[in-house]
Amino acid sequence: MNEHIQAVPLDKAYRLLTHGPTVLVSAHHAGIDNVMAAAWACALDFAPPKLTVVLDKSTRTRALIEASGQFVIQVPTARLLQLTHEVGTRSRAIEPDKLDAVGVELLRLGASGMPYVAGCSAWLECRLVPEPHNQQVYDLFIGEVTAAWADDHVFRNGHWEFESAGPEWRSIHHVAGGHFYAIGEAMAARLSEEE
Amino acid sequence: MNEHIQAVPLDKAYRLLTHGPTVLVSAHHAGIDNVMAAAWACALDFAPPKLTVVLDKSTRTRALIEASGQFVIQVPTARLLQLTHEVGTRSRAIEPDKLDAVGVELLRLGASGMPYVAGCSAWLECRLVPEPHNQQVYDLFIGEVTAAWADDHVFRNGHWEFESAGPEWRSIHHVAGGHFYAIGEAMAARLSEEE
Repeated sequence: MNEHIQAVPLDKAYRLLTHGPTVLVSAHHAGIDNVMAAAWACALDFAPPKLTVVLDKSTRTRALIEASGQFVIQVPTARLLQLTHEVGTRSRAIEPDKLDAVGVELLRLGASGMPYVAGCSAWLECRLVPEPHNQQVYDLFIGEVTAAWADDHVFRNGHWEFESAGPEWRSIHHVAGGHFYAIGEAMAARLSEEE
Repeated sequence: MNEHIQAVPLDKAYRLLTHGPTVLVSAHHAGIDNVMAAAWACALDFAPPKLTVVLDKSTRTRALIEASGQFVIQVPTARLLQLTHEVGTRSRAIEPDKLDAVGVELLRLGASGMPYVAGCSAWLECRLVPEPHNQQVYDLFIGEVTAAWADDHVFRNGHWEFESAGPEWRSIHHVAGGHFYAIGEAMAARLSEEE
């Protein structure tokens, strides 16, 4: 395993998503892996850490998640901009070899054998918290994070270090179509009196 | 009204949140206004536009939303970094004059008279879509966007223009404590074959 990929304590896992990056969603069922992009993913709770992600009914990845009850949310870097756009716009239903065609490399970091996308900065392995009403009416899925990992080039000691890592490590934030913004400069608020 | 604040067509409203900014949440009930910060807000649907936001049970703003069924989600700019941090860490329950103490200026943009925070780049007025199970178990609230506005210094013709606006217009993305990142540089993916 890549020595730069370190486990993240679960009580810090929310920090991997709080700044609002676009993510990749991966899943596995019955011998099939798939990966999609999702701009609408969000932290939901600290401990145990939970998150939400919106998964359209047309996606094959959603079907794998519904069948297996597991998925991985991962944070692509600027280096994966094109890959992120392509896994988000091409479907395995039309291209059975989509992952190879796009050039997705999968790792197996956890004991579960779930597919993790190589080259990301962080990975959150999740157990689906079944909420059929949310899933059916809103396409809204809730996951409980059971393991988290990050690349220490850019996330160390519980903190993002975008300012010291190279620009290729920046998270990417989708707007529409092929348009994204990279995350930018660090800003610090003064602590208020009661902190 | 500020001539730079323009209505945003509802079918473009999702673009105001898709890049994952930290937001301010404002609400009004029975003569009381309040404003809080929320890093965990996310687009949920395109048409009609919907969004999710996580609101802790300890917040006074949540109580106003539960009572009135209405709220505004707005996107603070880098200029409002300190204000965002302070409305997120100080409570009206302890400081009844919190908004004045922090220096929050409120506008009334919509016909509803709801409080909008001045100096933001975008505003989404929402009707609460009641989902008592989500609200109670997950602190998760769903809003349907009924009106949207943006400042044309930084959002024009349905697009964010962070790259041409001054740095004070950048959205801010919370990590933890007083630590944020501003949104950064624009990046474009090549269109894939079927686009």
